[in-house]
Amino acid sequence: MAAMRLANLLGPDLEDALKTDPDALHDALEEFHPEDIAEIVEDLSLELTLELFTKLPDEFSADVLTCLPSELQTEILERLSRRDAAEILSEMDPDDLVDVVQELREEDEKLADDLLAHLEQADPEIAEDVRELSAYPEDVAGGLMTTDYVALSPERKVWQAIEEVRRLALEDGVETVYYVYVVYSEKLVGVVSMRDLILSESDQELGDIMSENIVSVRDTDDQEVVAHTIAKYDFMALPVIDEQGNLRGVVTVDDVVDVVIEEATEDAHKMGAVEALEEGYFETDLVQMFRSRVFWLSLLFVGGFLTTTVMERFSGQLSAAVTLAVFVPLIISSGGNSGSQSAALIIRALAVGDVEPRDWLRVLGREVVVSLSLGLVLGVLGFARAYFAGGPDDDPILLGVAVSLSTVGVVMTGSLFGSLLPLGIQRVGLDPAVSSTPFIASLVDVIGLLIYLSIAGAVLGVG
Amino acid sequence: MAAMRLANLLGPDLEDALKTDPDALHDALEEFHPEDIAEIVEDLSLELTLELFTKLPDEFSADVLTCLPSELQTEILERLSRRDAAEILSEMDPDDLVDVVQELREEDEKLADDLLAHLEQADPEIAEDVRELSAYPEDVAGGLMTTDYVALSPERKVWQAIEEVRRLALEDGVETVYYVYVVYSEKLVGVVSMRDLILSESDQELGDIMSENIVSVRDTDDQEVVAHTIAKYDFMALPVIDEQGNLRGVVTVDDVVDVVIEEATEDAHKMGAVEALEEGYFETDLVQMFRSRVFWLSLLFVGGFLTTTVMERFSGQLSAAVTLAVFVPLIISSGGNSGSQSAALIIRALAVGDVEPRDWLRVLGREVVVSLSLGLVLGVLGFARAYFAGGPDDDPILLGVAVSLSTVGVVMTGSLFGSLLPLGIQRVGLDPAVSSTPFIASLVDVIGLLIYLSIAGAVLGVG
Repeated sequence: MAAMRLANLLGPDLEDALKTDPDALHDALEEFHPEDIAEIVEDLSLELTLELFTKLPDEFSADVLTCLPSELQTEILERLSRRDAAEILSEMDPDDLVDVVQELREEDEKLADDLLAHLEQADPEIAEDVRELSAYPEDVAGGLMTTDYVALSPERKVWQAIEEVRRLALEDGVETVYYVYVVYSEKLVGVVSMRDLILSESDQELGDIMSENIVSVRDTDDQEVVAHTIAKYDFMALPVIDEQGNLRGVVTVDDVVDVVIEEATEDAHKMGAVEALEEGYFETDLVQMFRSRVFWLSLLFVGGFLTTTVMERFSGQLSAAVTLAVFVPLIISSGGNSGSQSAALIIRALAVGDVEPRDWLRVLGREVVVSLSLGLVLGVLGFARAYFAGGPDDDPILLGVAVSLSTVGVVMTGSLFGSLLPLGIQRVGLDPAVSSTPFIASLVDVIGLLIYLSIAGAVLGVG
Repeated sequence: MAAMRLANLLGPDLEDALKTDPDALHDALEEFHPEDIAEIVEDLSLELTLELFTKLPDEFSADVLTCLPSELQTEILERLSRRDAAEILSEMDPDDLVDVVQELREEDEKLADDLLAHLEQADPEIAEDVRELSAYPEDVAGGLMTTDYVALSPERKVWQAIEEVRRLALEDGVETVYYVYVVYSEKLVGVVSMRDLILSESDQELGDIMSENIVSVRDTDDQEVVAHTIAKYDFMALPVIDEQGNLRGVVTVDDVVDVVIEEATEDAHKMGAVEALEEGYFETDLVQMFRSRVFWLSLLFVGGFLTTTVMERFSGQLSAAVTLAVFVPLIISSGGNSGSQSAALIIRALAVGDVEPRDWLRVLGREVVVSLSLGLVLGVLGFARAYFAGGPDDDPILLGVAVSLSTVGVVMTGSLFGSLLPLGIQRVGLDPAVSSTPFIASLVDVIGLLIYLSIAGAVLGVG
């Protein structure tokens, strides 16, 4: 409903409103969330958008710009005057600002440098923050953290901390402050929650009320570590320290929600043998979509040539008993399916920290038991199917035995590869999600064929 | 490091400390996070754990109990006296308390009722909250929300709101309050952020400073909707309203992080054709593990009998030209792989709200273009492989044409099924993640065989 009212507001009258009374327009727009305004702005012409960003207050423009897709951000910043752009950027939260500048740098390095130079003049402190935060990759704690936080020394009083929280809310527009961090010569030595602050006497020293049992992450820790830590302790914010134990920034839980969603998408794509996409399904153009799929698909296809080689090796047996060929798709797919189940279980268990590579022996034990049981169930089903198949020359019992024995072997092979391969891949420091379901299935296809054609050939006496 | 010191503390001396000086032990333990204490408690004997829960203050016990796995929670509550148990429960946050009672009810309905009756005496208000919250399933907004929040009428002053926030922190131990909700005869009419509160004059009325553009969720909304909304707006908390627009509770972002992780795990399992597990990999016993896999694996296996039927139909052609059989595994797996890629992309895009079922025509268009391109690449590779395969009787060019044409067809079929099936499944109200990679692969196996054997039979003149 809000979006509808907003759409009317930003409709044909917008241009008039911008010309005649930008202040009234701003007042009206301020009622809406920047995320909703951004959705509407995406559908405006670039000219109108630029006019909006120039005429309306910088703080408002900064909020909306933050919510726009990165391509549009870059386009807008390229077309604004350097000064207007720098003024809008200086109103952003430091962590959002860094993201924008980093995206911009990929498209237009000169513009990014120019804007930083202008930013330096507008607000040297922020420019310094951006330089510091830009040094970190996007997917580590340092790349997620903000420098908007309250840090005070232990001898400061509760009332001073409250003053400082108020100043941060007033000057930097910070919505909520969760903790006051206590630092002693830059080192993080304690944490005071807002609750402690509210409940303490105003002249108590922070050093006396702080908790010294601090949970923190290193600036170089992967974003998955940040997400796990914040999820485990249900914290609202997590301090980030460097090698020396100095406080460098704070990661807030709202950014962690985005990280968790992003990581889950990346893993799902990798598990489906697709290179992780940077943008949404419809935002990714067809060439990128093709690229994200062609490498793995071709690799798996060329790897699949091995199945052809195995089949060629056994072509004598296959022509001697064509019934043998009839069960090939069924048997190899059962291996792929059981491998896919194990891989899904283990990859996800690794992602949430339930299982580690050093648990491989326990995993092996469990998978042997479970996959043997599963294999026996499928083996019985397979026997029944094979018993009623086959030509007049085939012995139905022998064929059933051949199919069911192979099924047990192939299902177990699938599970063992599906579970151990992700552990091995994590062990050597790669992302276990690359041992995708198709990858496991292709591997198991080859081994499954060898198992089936050897066993069946021997049982049926055509080896 | 904290965990190590803690382990020492909870080692052999724990029993002594509990007997001689429980207060000193409590002071020492209070330095640690309940999540860390819970990890150690998991390794203690049940007797010692019970002693710990009886001797230490209820508030402390409540915090630790909240962090324990649900089976252990139930065990502890069964062994404590009803009164002790009810007193500990009454110190829990309402949303955590409901989770505990709901888990308990599954194991031991009588105990759950008994404890609620005792809770009724200890704290009637909390018992009422639990009854209200228990009415909701765990995976909707109502099941996630807490009733610990500040709601005031519009004519109340800023200083009164601040007093109320302080009371909530003091009495209910709420760590951080994010927003004050403004209600008029129970209806949610506005929101005031802590920032607005801090920056306003203390005698202003809430009605004058509140924002009326409220983002809320319905109590019956799925937890995915809650997660999307909070992720989109970067809110710290989201109000939950009922059909009449009355405020019923608040969902905080830390619970949403858990939801997002849980949903991603469920989806990953389903995509691997495993029933979603309730507990972690090692916590799930082998029988449950077997059960979570046997249904889908058997279903896919029996479905796979269709491949056998197709192969039997074509057994004349297969014995006439055994080379035909040689390419069966390669061709059908290429269909499964391309289907798996499309399914991963679409299932994830549906999960994050990028794509909706009504976009099916746009999806179809994109997938046709991308899969045709992918099919052509694999077709060329397949031609090359087939050209160098085959017996002395086979025409290498004809074989190459048969394999490459089939590959194009099978890759396209895989992509179309992989992308459209999840959309269809979501359309009829089921979870698209059940159209797992193995499910798509098995379906495409059958169709792929039909395509390949028909095309190849015709091209090679053995049809």
